[in-house]
Amino acid sequence: MFPFERTWVHARDVEQVALAIEDMVTQSSGPYFAALWGLALAARHAAADAPDQVTERVRAAADRLIATRPTNDHQRLAAAFVLDAVDAARARGEDSPAELAAAALAGARAGDADYRGRSRAMGEAAARLLPDGARVLTHCWGDLYLTETVAAAQRAGKELTFYCTETRPYLQGARLTAETLAEMGIPTTLITDGMGASLFSRGEVDALITASDRVTLDGHVVNKVGTLQLAVAAHAFGVPYHALCHEPDPKSPTAADVPIEHRDGDEVLHTLGRRTASERVRGHYPAFDVTPPRFVTTVVTDQGPFAPGALAGYEHPTHDQGEQE
Amino acid sequence: MFPFERTWVHARDVEQVALAIEDMVTQSSGPYFAALWGLALAARHAAADAPDQVTERVRAAADRLIATRPTNDHQRLAAAFVLDAVDAARARGEDSPAELAAAALAGARAGDADYRGRSRAMGEAAARLLPDGARVLTHCWGDLYLTETVAAAQRAGKELTFYCTETRPYLQGARLTAETLAEMGIPTTLITDGMGASLFSRGEVDALITASDRVTLDGHVVNKVGTLQLAVAAHAFGVPYHALCHEPDPKSPTAADVPIEHRDGDEVLHTLGRRTASERVRGHYPAFDVTPPRFVTTVVTDQGPFAPGALAGYEHPTHDQGEQE
Repeated sequence: MFPFERTWVHARDVEQVALAIEDMVTQSSGPYFAALWGLALAARHAAADAPDQVTERVRAAADRLIATRPTNDHQRLAAAFVLDAVDAARARGEDSPAELAAAALAGARAGDADYRGRSRAMGEAAARLLPDGARVLTHCWGDLYLTETVAAAQRAGKELTFYCTETRPYLQGARLTAETLAEMGIPTTLITDGMGASLFSRGEVDALITASDRVTLDGHVVNKVGTLQLAVAAHAFGVPYHALCHEPDPKSPTAADVPIEHRDGDEVLHTLGRRTASERVRGHYPAFDVTPPRFVTTVVTDQGPFAPGALAGYEHPTHDQGEQE
Repeated sequence: MFPFERTWVHARDVEQVALAIEDMVTQSSGPYFAALWGLALAARHAAADAPDQVTERVRAAADRLIATRPTNDHQRLAAAFVLDAVDAARARGEDSPAELAAAALAGARAGDADYRGRSRAMGEAAARLLPDGARVLTHCWGDLYLTETVAAAQRAGKELTFYCTETRPYLQGARLTAETLAEMGIPTTLITDGMGASLFSRGEVDALITASDRVTLDGHVVNKVGTLQLAVAAHAFGVPYHALCHEPDPKSPTAADVPIEHRDGDEVLHTLGRRTASERVRGHYPAFDVTPPRFVTTVVTDQGPFAPGALAGYEHPTHDQGEQE
């Protein structure tokens, strides 16, 4: 509905949080935060349970939230913050339901602070790649990845203008990205998903920037479908493509390790709930695509920019290492 | 409105024909036929005029119709058929208003037969490039170029399946192409304008085929915006791109000779008349893009297939030569 209507969806338990993620009420960075607070909620709801049951309940809630969107890795990262905090509390002997709920909340807060801090560091690194006056094309909705990049450029006194794609079928670009960039004072122009190459070929864009749902250790960028097409076109016409991610995914050595979510093809046949295609066809909706490293100029992380072939140089935080087991 | 509603627009004089073309009531091959019959109508309406005035009136009508869409060359070709027929009648001494109107009508009929015959020859050449069972991606609405290709493949006993892009902002693919291919019995799947590269990269498409609004003598393909992005992606993943045109344009040595129509950017902000973008942005709508020959595998003409660098081998019909003056 956004930006035409602003409606709040109240999720009162983990299942409602999971459904909101599956129904794309919240997207991009949103599911990460929803997972954090959903797990804090699960711990609070376990107030009458024994310590083992609290842990089990939070772990089951984490599994449910991680399963909502198979391509994006954010919910897994969010869950690790809360689960680690609960485990640490128990190890310290703080295992009353109230103590465990407090630990889960503290874990969610730590996950929130971590994500915002990493987004800011990544945004500052991305902004350094953009010259003053840069005309930037972005695709879909980059959330904090995008806004922190823009905010860092603004702090550095750089003036940017943006093109954004409308990003069919959900129109994240036309609705979220366009509205947000305009709110930040950025002159913003909307194009359809097919126009990027036309702009690149005419020298009208200085950089392509997108967020990413996952970057593999060998430099493949998994992001909203349509990214690959823009990256290939940017490469063909000498425009750099910078992909934003906090860190390459230590669990994904290469693209074969990343499942690609296919959503209901009917979504392609409709626009904001209204049928916009012939009744005689079916729709096809691979929600993400994979951009090989040869079409990626830079992977911008919270540790700075990396060439896509040099991601081995990224030093994963220790909490990642634990997750690799 | 099509295919949700089927409404006939009656254009009762040349100005109404011109407005229908400008408003995109008719597109692709449509304006060619509209121009033919619009000029026959202009000649009929000149029944009270002197011979010179009839010619002048038809010529003014031709200028009006040619000016409707600057990128597409079809109206100029249509006008030549009618104007040549009127000039030939006068040269034979048939210069009564009734004789000139009859000549204009005969010219329109000749133009109609010529276009259909050339489309059929071109379609047969295109179908020969497609293997049985080919999965074909097309963009926008190719009209007779597309339907003659499909019909020729069907006559040859080949089974094809199609993907078509929805082609924002007008949704020609979602509405015209999808509906028409399905009517022809072709299993058809709709994708958004950003998904082509994803299909190419996964080996799900055997050929990209589009019509073209103009092909330059040095092999640049001018077609609906979005074509370039698909052609570049097809090239990157080894999928052939066949561009359909009756003939390369003898008046366009290279892309610099082709004006690119920019339509109202507001069209990008709407879908079927409904606002689908933030109120805070402006839209940008270059209606066509130019695909350089390095991304084109074949230019398929009514004289058969040509490599984009070998179009000098195309022998232009004599009526083209006259127009080059």
